Amino acid sequence: MSRQIGPKLLPPPELVEALLSRDNFLIATHVNPDGDAIGSCLALSDALNSLGKKCVLLDKHPIPAQYLFLPGQDKFETFEAFNASGKKIADFDTLVMVDCNHPDRIGLSTKELIPAIEELKRALAGGMFTVVIDHHQTENGFGNIRWISPETAATGMLVYAAIKKMGVTITQAIAKNIYTAIVTDTGNFRFDNTNAEVFRVAAELIDYGVSSSETYENAFESYSGGRFRLFLGVIGTLWIDGNIAVSTVTTKMFEETSTAADDTEAFVSFPMLMKDIRIAMLIRELKDGTCKVSLRSKGAIDVARVAEQFNGGGHKNAAESKPVWQRQSACCSKSSGK
Amino acid sequence: MSRQIGPKLLPPPELVEALLSRDNFLIATHVNPDGDAIGSCLALSDALNSLGKKCVLLDKHPIPAQYLFLPGQDKFETFEAFNASGKKIADFDTLVMVDCNHPDRIGLSTKELIPAIEELKRALAGGMFTVVIDHHQTENGFGNIRWISPETAATGMLVYAAIKKMGVTITQAIAKNIYTAIVTDTGNFRFDNTNAEVFRVAAELIDYGVSSSETYENAFESYSGGRFRLFLGVIGTLWIDGNIAVSTVTTKMFEETSTAADDTEAFVSFPMLMKDIRIAMLIRELKDGTCKVSLRSKGAIDVARVAEQFNGGGHKNAAESKPVWQRQSACCSKSSGK
Repeated sequence: MSRQIGPKLLPPPELVEALLSRDNFLIATHVNPDGDAIGSCLALSDALNSLGKKCVLLDKHPIPAQYLFLPGQDKFETFEAFNASGKKIADFDTLVMVDCNHPDRIGLSTKELIPAIEELKRALAGGMFTVVIDHHQTENGFGNIRWISPETAATGMLVYAAIKKMGVTITQAIAKNIYTAIVTDTGNFRFDNTNAEVFRVAAELIDYGVSSSETYENAFESYSGGRFRLFLGVIGTLWIDGNIAVSTVTTKMFEETSTAADDTEAFVSFPMLMKDIRIAMLIRELKDGTCKVSLRSKGAIDVARVAEQFNGGGHKNAAESKPVWQRQSACCSKSSGK
Repeated sequence: MSRQIGPKLLPPPELVEALLSRDNFLIATHVNPDGDAIGSCLALSDALNSLGKKCVLLDKHPIPAQYLFLPGQDKFETFEAFNASGKKIADFDTLVMVDCNHPDRIGLSTKELIPAIEELKRALAGGMFTVVIDHHQTENGFGNIRWISPETAATGMLVYAAIKKMGVTITQAIAKNIYTAIVTDTGNFRFDNTNAEVFRVAAELIDYGVSSSETYENAFESYSGGRFRLFLGVIGTLWIDGNIAVSTVTTKMFEETSTAADDTEAFVSFPMLMKDIRIAMLIRELKDGTCKVSLRSKGAIDVARVAEQFNGGGHKNAAESKPVWQRQSACCSKSSGK
């Protein structure tokens, strides 16, 4: 079932019941995981572990460098590592999908032949019990139990509410993970999803021993020298037309700075410093010559709807296209405003 | 009297008593006012007005562009405007100094001959009743009633506590001003002064109708085109040695972008994006050829103590020198690390 909830976060009773009654959890989140995805999974895993349950955390991609400070991050396994450890999908009674709501988002649509992914696809086709905890707009009916709350700032807020409802003691590690989840998806309390409930939860988490400044430093001010040089390069490509700002990052720029796609997190927002800029785009060249476009909006324009035109999605103020433009053609004509 | 207070902000009873019993207030804040200074003054003024009291808001300098969105900001008068309006210092029974604790900080040490300043100096010498509400470390014993709380994130937190204790209904305008005061001095909840009480107050202010994203946009993302070009220019001067980053801004750069000193707010922090940078400095050339240095620290180093060596001051993680270095000499040798 799906439920819209108000600012006082109340998890569906059947969600809490499922988490309390089941024992062996696969917890999976979306490809290219961000702080909300990682922090939410880690906090949920700690809570379930404290109740004596078994959890394995799965992600298609490794944890980005800026989230390696999160307590327990080394518990995440890629699907390959899952296989290498000899574990079997069939040993788990429940899949919890966190911060996403479709199997494609956890990487099951990959063309790579990875045994754990094939096993998981078969298990889902065979009716594996699935719980979804997410706050993304796009909804598709997947999952036996679904708590999808697009009006909630971060999936971490939902996980926190569920953990409290499960009666688990909040540890400093859980608090750090939830706090990081929240600051990631609220842009450290600056996006318009930052409501009073977000601040109330933040206050509680600080009381549980989180340092706001340390978290900020780790999540937002931990650029490597290469990443910083990449950022300077991206700033150098900035192109403005009216209230739209476009910047680009090429595979060559990644090579020259020994960086990768996840190093561009937040770059898109830089031109938002300007009062008149309402939409910012970052065009990122992929290795196959296509491009992905990250979109940010200040105010009224819903960039999730723009991204959907290009098979992407996201939130009203932050979205991403699927790779659609070809190098030297639409990608470049887009960057010159045609 | 001065009082150190804990996270539950309790204004000294004699402060509340003075505000409630007196009638004609001059409210003054520091030169080059920031969001904490301006928002705190405006909120206090609204509260006192709602009790039927008369307030005049004084600042030596005009309100910077990024704070012109604050409700009531047009109530601020420069000393010159105060004179031009025909008002007399002698008509006021109380001076409230907000976000500063010495008359020099409100501009009384100026060499310019401004009648209102001369009147105010005479009034203070003659024992004018003075209330100080501040959170800056430097303390000097000035003021009949002093509430100086260096461990509090923003003077806005103190003013908010005082307003509540006075029994005034919090309006949306008061909430917006206090919220802006807090986000200015906590760097939108990222500095290490961001404790649980800050978040609790933020939650209350959101409940009173503040928009977190609108405030962020107004206070931090309202650069003019010229200010943005200036920022790009400053980024271009960046110079790094170990964990110290130095950038510079010259009078020529201001001229070329039609900007002024207050447009450099926050520029100093840009290199903090890098994990290894622990101290950032922005050297700003003044018109007389001297330089001022803004300092920021991440973590253990107390830059207020560094700034004090150069007759400046501030907070542990954010401080500023007095103008001390000469052009072509110490200023430039400083910027090349000697």
